Amino acid sequence: MSMFQRPRGTRDFSPSEMGKRRQVESQFRLVCERFGFKEIATPTFENLALFTTKSGPSVIDETYAFKDKGGRDIALRPEFTPSVVRMYINEMQKVPKPIKIFCFGNCFRYDEPQKGRYREFYQFNAEIIGGDEVSADAEIITLAVGILEDVTLRNFELRIGYINILRELTKGLPNQQRILQAIDKKDFDKMRELLKADGAPALETKIMELASIRGDDSAIEKAKAIVGDGKDFEYIEAFVKRLKSYGMKDYVLDFGLVRGLDYYTGMVFEIDYPGLGAEKQICGGGSYKLIELFGGEKIFSTGFAMGFDRIVLVLEDQRRQFPEGKVRAYVIPMDDSLREASIEVATSLRKSGIITDMDLSTRTPSKALKYANSINAEYAILLKPELYRENKVTMRNLESGAQEDVTISSLSGILKK
Amino acid sequence: MSMFQRPRGTRDFSPSEMGKRRQVESQFRLVCERFGFKEIATPTFENLALFTTKSGPSVIDETYAFKDKGGRDIALRPEFTPSVVRMYINEMQKVPKPIKIFCFGNCFRYDEPQKGRYREFYQFNAEIIGGDEVSADAEIITLAVGILEDVTLRNFELRIGYINILRELTKGLPNQQRILQAIDKKDFDKMRELLKADGAPALETKIMELASIRGDDSAIEKAKAIVGDGKDFEYIEAFVKRLKSYGMKDYVLDFGLVRGLDYYTGMVFEIDYPGLGAEKQICGGGSYKLIELFGGEKIFSTGFAMGFDRIVLVLEDQRRQFPEGKVRAYVIPMDDSLREASIEVATSLRKSGIITDMDLSTRTPSKALKYANSINAEYAILLKPELYRENKVTMRNLESGAQEDVTISSLSGILKK
Repeated sequence: MSMFQRPRGTRDFSPSEMGKRRQVESQFRLVCERFGFKEIATPTFENLALFTTKSGPSVIDETYAFKDKGGRDIALRPEFTPSVVRMYINEMQKVPKPIKIFCFGNCFRYDEPQKGRYREFYQFNAEIIGGDEVSADAEIITLAVGILEDVTLRNFELRIGYINILRELTKGLPNQQRILQAIDKKDFDKMRELLKADGAPALETKIMELASIRGDDSAIEKAKAIVGDGKDFEYIEAFVKRLKSYGMKDYVLDFGLVRGLDYYTGMVFEIDYPGLGAEKQICGGGSYKLIELFGGEKIFSTGFAMGFDRIVLVLEDQRRQFPEGKVRAYVIPMDDSLREASIEVATSLRKSGIITDMDLSTRTPSKALKYANSINAEYAILLKPELYRENKVTMRNLESGAQEDVTISSLSGILKK
Repeated sequence: MSMFQRPRGTRDFSPSEMGKRRQVESQFRLVCERFGFKEIATPTFENLALFTTKSGPSVIDETYAFKDKGGRDIALRPEFTPSVVRMYINEMQKVPKPIKIFCFGNCFRYDEPQKGRYREFYQFNAEIIGGDEVSADAEIITLAVGILEDVTLRNFELRIGYINILRELTKGLPNQQRILQAIDKKDFDKMRELLKADGAPALETKIMELASIRGDDSAIEKAKAIVGDGKDFEYIEAFVKRLKSYGMKDYVLDFGLVRGLDYYTGMVFEIDYPGLGAEKQICGGGSYKLIELFGGEKIFSTGFAMGFDRIVLVLEDQRRQFPEGKVRAYVIPMDDSLREASIEVATSLRKSGIITDMDLSTRTPSKALKYANSINAEYAILLKPELYRENKVTMRNLESGAQEDVTISSLSGILKK
């Protein structure tokens, strides 16, 4: 073992893991682009205050914070949205709206590492800044679902709520944020206690009734019956209609959906993969009011974060196939006098774009063949003195064992197929 | 302005910058794969000792180190090699050799930010662990040059040295490491002072003579004349011959080349782009002895790091073209009654893989057209009530202004071309 170990809660990724991860990442990027989203990137660390100002206590406790050598309070980003908003306000306010942006990368939390929860983890993130509320909210949810469909993740569950209804109900209560957080955690004892402390114990029944409504579009009428009609429901009805235009049918309306972050204002949604148990949430988002709070203009914004690690985990669990980037040609000199020649052959194949490897040890030909098999190379290209004098090599299919002698000049053409 | 600013020495990347960066990154990855290298990834932070044990003072001073909430000494990685070696020892020692791996990502330094030097910067990294020395060293240099050629970076300069000759010359001197570092920085006053302190002032002439030798293969004889023949030159001659098999001609042998890190042992190389001035180095590497020092078996290893940010900077400077991922179709309802219909059209185009966007505001058609032009969309797809009743839309080429009415069912076929 090395005298050094990985820090707690972090991971190394092997070539086969990275192969899968890059394929999923690249599909995410292509779907975003297909929807007209553009990629941006922000720093891995930010001033701590960016994350603690409006995100709520669950984020603050777990933020990976430290003092840098200059004594500044710094944090490794726990999520992307505050950084995206900061960048938008400082650099992109003049760009024509709506701005549709995404990013991908690592985020950090400082809590006890456990299965499926790491101190460094990876997220996809997408945001729409500007635009009409119904249109942008529907577009962002469609993108989230479109990504999951594109990576062929099956059996996920989309729940959609509207946080403003619970906010209106609890308006003016001193413990409003904590009450909403208790509802988010389904800690109804805590909620009851806080409502009592705020002198509003009567709200309990109404909240419990509302929070238990889940189902298809008929849930809207049920919720209206509890809290009364109003602008929120106008929005929800228009939004649900819009989702239908996108062809979206599989969703559950959930009037108890809150989300852990304080900055959400209207539509909120979560996508779960129940097979993951306690860590089942693979995506969450909604519309938020962070731009104004950070000193920008008043503008509508909506977005989501997607748990990349968990998505890869689910895809592995669902036995999705990830085509491997196999070595196409493994070049072997059958005589040491042909080592330089074998490098020339390998170099010309690589220049034609063919994935080519060759022995970098001074292995015997039979050991080199064994190695070529161990890395699942498709063809061995064997250089033999008598053939090489005729500018030919032997091409051996390592799976079937079939082989033929071909001219060096025709090799790349044959292997490109 | 936002109430929050980016931390010092960090950057945000706009969509157009990210477009370029992802293209270069993806070319790097493809060339590595073509050479039979596989990608791995390690954590962004490590225990501080991993980086301070063997890297030398220039790294230690600038390491972005901090104490985490548990009081542990942690560092944001200043480079990849120590992490790769740690991962290799702990997880990959049993993998058939040679292991050819690469990684790409962000590294960190804590020094005064200045032009071209950031606290968070990006590197490509490639390593070969195991294999024959001449073969692996030649392969790794060829990969570095192959990447630069593939991204069409012109006018770079490759210098190759052999650090062991200077190590042998200064063997046993108490200040050996510091003397080598002084040579690396071309601080010959410092070197003289240290040689004097070590009681070896006579070495000055020999070192100065050796360090001034730069040129083509004839430099080998000149160096031999100064320090005498031996195993090191046997290696250099075999290595230079091997480079020729790879078709490599444009390099300079530089016997004064040292590199700033203490762990290099044999062949060392640097690639400069002189146009960048003081920050001209875009790649550096060589063979190193870190695996043994970290508690692994004795095995040959060689690798390089490439400055991604600087490479992008040079490519911009050389006016390399980066094809933009343009929106192919921008769908506009000419009447508000067709908004839902326009979403259906856009959704079906996206499902066919076509980059499609649409108005998410409630803009007038003429403003939506203006927006489509501002984002350089290629076609506007206009939905008009009378045409839509015949299942047709108007397809307008936004560059030429030419337009024609086409059936909705034929649209994706036409746009796919």
